Amino acid sequence: MELQIAKHTKEVEEIICRFLPKEEGYQKTVLSAMNYSFNAGGKRLRPMLMLEVFRLFGGKNIKLVEPFMAAMEMLHTSSLIHDDLPAMDNDEYRRGKKTTHIVYGEAMAILAGDGLLLYAFETAAKAYEVEPENKNIGKALSIFAQKAGIYGMVGGQTVDVEMEGKPLSQEQLLFIHHLKTGALIEASMMIGAILAEASDEDVLKIQKIASNIGLAFQIQDDILDVMGDEEMIGKPVGSDCKNNKTTYVSLKGIEQSHADVERYTNEAVGLLDSLHGANEFLKSLLMALVNRKK
Amino acid sequence: MELQIAKHTKEVEEIICRFLPKEEGYQKTVLSAMNYSFNAGGKRLRPMLMLEVFRLFGGKNIKLVEPFMAAMEMLHTSSLIHDDLPAMDNDEYRRGKKTTHIVYGEAMAILAGDGLLLYAFETAAKAYEVEPENKNIGKALSIFAQKAGIYGMVGGQTVDVEMEGKPLSQEQLLFIHHLKTGALIEASMMIGAILAEASDEDVLKIQKIASNIGLAFQIQDDILDVMGDEEMIGKPVGSDCKNNKTTYVSLKGIEQSHADVERYTNEAVGLLDSLHGANEFLKSLLMALVNRKK
Repeated sequence: MELQIAKHTKEVEEIICRFLPKEEGYQKTVLSAMNYSFNAGGKRLRPMLMLEVFRLFGGKNIKLVEPFMAAMEMLHTSSLIHDDLPAMDNDEYRRGKKTTHIVYGEAMAILAGDGLLLYAFETAAKAYEVEPENKNIGKALSIFAQKAGIYGMVGGQTVDVEMEGKPLSQEQLLFIHHLKTGALIEASMMIGAILAEASDEDVLKIQKIASNIGLAFQIQDDILDVMGDEEMIGKPVGSDCKNNKTTYVSLKGIEQSHADVERYTNEAVGLLDSLHGANEFLKSLLMALVNRKK
Repeated sequence: MELQIAKHTKEVEEIICRFLPKEEGYQKTVLSAMNYSFNAGGKRLRPMLMLEVFRLFGGKNIKLVEPFMAAMEMLHTSSLIHDDLPAMDNDEYRRGKKTTHIVYGEAMAILAGDGLLLYAFETAAKAYEVEPENKNIGKALSIFAQKAGIYGMVGGQTVDVEMEGKPLSQEQLLFIHHLKTGALIEASMMIGAILAEASDEDVLKIQKIASNIGLAFQIQDDILDVMGDEEMIGKPVGSDCKNNKTTYVSLKGIEQSHADVERYTNEAVGLLDSLHGANEFLKSLLMALVNRKK
């Protein structure tokens, strides 16, 4: 499966990198900073999911979904640049590369994040050049903004930052997980469905699938964190070794966490099977995401 | 004229404030920070220009332009929040009120800026709820993103930050003035025209008017800066008292600057007169903007 995903990552990168701006003109530095961050790697999971859902519903004109695929990765990258800033997580490295503010300075990193965020919308709107009359583009743009914003990703990020070091209730933790990780996965899959002209009912099903996968993904993340800690420093599983940070595992225990990952995944896969189309790679991809070991 | 503008500011505020998010839920703090910044005042010039151009072209359904008016002010406010950050201009006060990062902390200010930027797009897309079939909404959204982004406002801001303390060529200064101040004025007026179903030719004329007004406005700003300094600290007009900052006045001298404000304004007003419609308030507003004394 790893190889198959790598192949799809390559396919997606060939598409999305075509939308990057040229590094020229007076604003060359910020353009370099934007592209540096965008090119820092990753599996390109969100645009990959968007494309595979588009295929699931028999989407015909791939040119229509391509601008949104690039836009989604730009939006995601923009959030990483701002997350890494000194006033936020203060991270110096991401995926083994120096973070944007380390290379370009803090002011340029703030502007590169803003620039990528806006370029994401500019890029998504290029779908109108492909099909000027297509009403689904407006729907897709609305979802894109909603799921990224204060009732989506940024909302989750805000509560996470605000509650740092404080104990969380289960409801609060699920709220953060759902928005911070889940919202863009939902948006990616929903936009793929919308642009492929899926029915409203099917778009809702896709949202539910994405929401379950997002949660399972994040719980698995919490599990891997604890297991990683255990291997590395020998603390017992379920301990609060991460600066008292509340995690799914600290709230529910490791066994229940494993069980919940399985439950959410099964529900997602069951819903996927209930749809008319078939996309075996998408199914395997969703299962690989939540069953990953690192 | 001051009174007339104040009346219009009130009219615009009644419209745009209806689009502000409710301060509730887990993300209440960032919502408060967003609204705090939005409510810090100002003439609401950009949405006012948008509305008056919409009226100039006989736009019928005001409900269509309202979401874009609110969105434009959110976008503008978002840029002010990030501009004021310690890593940028490091300003503690704006319009006599403490800046967002002083009141809410730096992390919340970064997120409030991101949140407002995204909420601007979410809000603009609400125009689809008013007229789902209207193709001009897509055009307006594209202009909105382009003029805000790296080839618009953020681009100008980036070059301004990067060149701080260094001497600028006339071309560089005009580039910054054109993008940093001009781009959103262009977008505001163009979107008003587009949503009122102005012809492509007229939208181009409006862009030219806005571009001239933006430049005249910024040159006047430079003139007022120098005159303010002269009154306060007795330095000669045209001196480089502002940390060697290159201004239009330091490049061209005060007389040429005055002449250029007049030239750009006349060109704008001439173009405005050449359009079919008439909007006397818009004309007076443009003249008041560039002839302001403070």
